[in-house]
Amino acid sequence: MNLKELEEKLYKEIPLTEFMQIKLDKIDEKSLISSASFEKNKNDKNTGFAGSLSTLVTISAWCACYLNTIKLGYKDSMIAIIKSDTSYKAPVTKDFYCETTLPSQEQIDLFKKKLQNKKSSSLRIKSQIIEDGKVCVNFEGVYIIKV
Amino acid sequence: MNLKELEEKLYKEIPLTEFMQIKLDKIDEKSLISSASFEKNKNDKNTGFAGSLSTLVTISAWCACYLNTIKLGYKDSMIAIIKSDTSYKAPVTKDFYCETTLPSQEQIDLFKKKLQNKKSSSLRIKSQIIEDGKVCVNFEGVYIIKV
Repeated sequence: MNLKELEEKLYKEIPLTEFMQIKLDKIDEKSLISSASFEKNKNDKNTGFAGSLSTLVTISAWCACYLNTIKLGYKDSMIAIIKSDTSYKAPVTKDFYCETTLPSQEQIDLFKKKLQNKKSSSLRIKSQIIEDGKVCVNFEGVYIIKV
Repeated sequence: MNLKELEEKLYKEIPLTEFMQIKLDKIDEKSLISSASFEKNKNDKNTGFAGSLSTLVTISAWCACYLNTIKLGYKDSMIAIIKSDTSYKAPVTKDFYCETTLPSQEQIDLFKKKLQNKKSSSLRIKSQIIEDGKVCVNFEGVYIIKV
């Protein structure tokens, strides 16, 4: 599944992602880059709304889990966040730019093994919202995946 | 400021709150009750979308800070979340119901004192999303308030 297809799936199945104009822009071996419209996601102080910032990191990290699960050949899975820690370090003043760190090969190997043996595994994913080189939001979420 | 006026302020200034149909339903000395539409906030599994759940608790706790700041006579303030911990314990399957614990009198006294002396203070606020008596989401956020 490519990013465009996953983006369409999000829009179709999760109305909030379409309203927020969340985009899945780019992926390589290390990270997934996503973004969201500033206009749709601003607050009373004309900076990025915390709820929107939180939503972008949460769904981007979910996408990292989803893409890894698909890659291992599991088309039907249940992926749910179980906990998250978020720090808001600086206001965001333009379209949100989000960088999600993909699991390392070591993490993926363990993940694969657990899915094979137990049909269930978890991933801890980090995601950041960055503006002009400055980290504005730091997020870490734990996701459970059942196949 | 009553809840209806605050709700209108949210809709006017934070587009996401209107899309989510967030409502501020009720307040007493101990808690603020808020809610959001299930239809606007569902996910691919037809349960409550984590981003929406997170947004509802985050803005509800912000409202608790805002209402307390207004009550102390500060009309212009800057209220921002600095960190949050969220646990997702069970799926939500209908309109979201959110209960935010208001600060105790002891917390308010300290808050007031710090605002008077330093023009800045913080509040730690707990908020939960509950369905049929079961806690589905546990949230704790730290907010900084400058006047």
